[in-house]
Amino acid sequence: MSITVVGSVALDTVETPFGKKENALGGAATYFSTAASLYTQVQLVGVVGDDFPEQHVEFLRQRGVDLRGLQRKPGQTFHWAGKYEYDNLNNAQTLDTQLGLFATFDPQLPEDYRAADCVFLANIDPTLQLKVLEQVRQPKLKVLDSMNFWISSNKAALTEVISKVDVVLMNEGEALQYGESFSLVTAARNILALGPKVLLAKKGEYGAALFADRTYFFAPAYPLETVKDPTGAGDTFAGGFLGYLSRAGDYSLAAMKRAVLHGSAMASFTIEDYSIDRLRTLTLGDVERRVEDFAHFTNVTGEAIFESLRLER
Amino acid sequence: MSITVVGSVALDTVETPFGKKENALGGAATYFSTAASLYTQVQLVGVVGDDFPEQHVEFLRQRGVDLRGLQRKPGQTFHWAGKYEYDNLNNAQTLDTQLGLFATFDPQLPEDYRAADCVFLANIDPTLQLKVLEQVRQPKLKVLDSMNFWISSNKAALTEVISKVDVVLMNEGEALQYGESFSLVTAARNILALGPKVLLAKKGEYGAALFADRTYFFAPAYPLETVKDPTGAGDTFAGGFLGYLSRAGDYSLAAMKRAVLHGSAMASFTIEDYSIDRLRTLTLGDVERRVEDFAHFTNVTGEAIFESLRLER
Repeated sequence: MSITVVGSVALDTVETPFGKKENALGGAATYFSTAASLYTQVQLVGVVGDDFPEQHVEFLRQRGVDLRGLQRKPGQTFHWAGKYEYDNLNNAQTLDTQLGLFATFDPQLPEDYRAADCVFLANIDPTLQLKVLEQVRQPKLKVLDSMNFWISSNKAALTEVISKVDVVLMNEGEALQYGESFSLVTAARNILALGPKVLLAKKGEYGAALFADRTYFFAPAYPLETVKDPTGAGDTFAGGFLGYLSRAGDYSLAAMKRAVLHGSAMASFTIEDYSIDRLRTLTLGDVERRVEDFAHFTNVTGEAIFESLRLER
Repeated sequence: MSITVVGSVALDTVETPFGKKENALGGAATYFSTAASLYTQVQLVGVVGDDFPEQHVEFLRQRGVDLRGLQRKPGQTFHWAGKYEYDNLNNAQTLDTQLGLFATFDPQLPEDYRAADCVFLANIDPTLQLKVLEQVRQPKLKVLDSMNFWISSNKAALTEVISKVDVVLMNEGEALQYGESFSLVTAARNILALGPKVLLAKKGEYGAALFADRTYFFAPAYPLETVKDPTGAGDTFAGGFLGYLSRAGDYSLAAMKRAVLHGSAMASFTIEDYSIDRLRTLTLGDVERRVEDFAHFTNVTGEAIFESLRLER
């Protein structure tokens, strides 16, 4: 029971309507690992420079994340700067991207990373995602994330990776762009026709939808009163989703539906604070309580108790 | 078992990325009545001019809609012209509004309309909504719809109506605007504090959320491959919702959850064609089949069969 993840480990400068954080711990692989390590053994593949604070490495180590695949080199760590507007918290505006050492990143998997049950290819250049797939040995589940930049600039390589994975995880807008339709049903059909068994479309504050052959499953997002920083919601969604499956050792469609709820719950915690801060003290019990709430939210026959909405009148 | 509805009966000119219709049958009360008349007796209060085609009146009469409250006067029928962009099908851009006779509309309820079980105050001037409330006699359920225009221009009157109804139905953006929060949970709390038992927030292609004391219920929208014209989705949602409750004679929170699914299913049919065209041939059986699908979409334990996504590979 282990997951190998490849992706960015970064320093982020993020501005939201509620505040600003400079050089906070970020990156898709960081967010994913922080979430998934609540469930299972995570093996991280990435690169950081000599400007990367030792305390961040120590944090991941204390989560039990295997860091033998994290290259540490002289040079600059990947840095992303972004901003969220009040009326569009779902979509970051990128203000600056400095690839640093990530520009020449060549993912190398330590020998025992290759036998992982699951592989998560976070949002990086699809040619690097392919390099990772060449190094792993028959994982039970291969999951890919991507973004509009790669769809526009390297669709051929992205299509090759998509044809080799089991689950494609994309933002709704990206799935529509890649699947070339305004209808997510049609886009899903087009993506699944390339080989994957499942398309998981992330809709931010509107939840997530799972598409498979003759199957549609929908999970709303958790209704929140506090949102501080949406960064990392998608990657921690992936961390909860894959973490749950790896821990359960069950990669069936039935397990994936429950895993989507774990992903949604995990993402809901992430955005309640900056960076990975909310996850520092989060327990699996906290996540499970929100997962149980989801069953109430959409249960048409049962009682729907949601204490957050207690009215004092 | 009857619903009295007050609102616009209109001629709409609508342009979508998929085509254009001029002077098609429209208006909130029309859409609502067309949907709700599948379930129950509907009594319509509105006004049209001598330019309003007799065939439209005949259509509503054939649906069994009681039209004694529909005033027919010399002058112009309310006309709305709007446009939907490909990347924002949820939100119409208003190109033109000609109030015509609606500018001087004074809703008068025939005597036996006053004893209706339900009253639906469609989106009109809140001072007119108040006039209707003064004429009805203790209905079991009073439901209000409104829009950003009234929130900006006449919030005091709108607040007075809101304090007198049981259910507030608004688009998500309007609920946030009226409730003065970026969080729908907080906005709901603020709206419910004024008196209503339920806030029903319509999220277009992202479904609908019901808020009540300690209760949150969410229904996704029906996943579609064909969308022609989103006009009237919200009003037919209301028609399915109230129609179901009136037919069931049950106005409990438990019934409302199932009613939300009827509303969502009804709206999903509406947008598959222009104007009320898809509803002309729709049966209650068609609606009920989509309602049953909803149970699968969010059921984490059961089988989720969705034949529309059958892949032929």
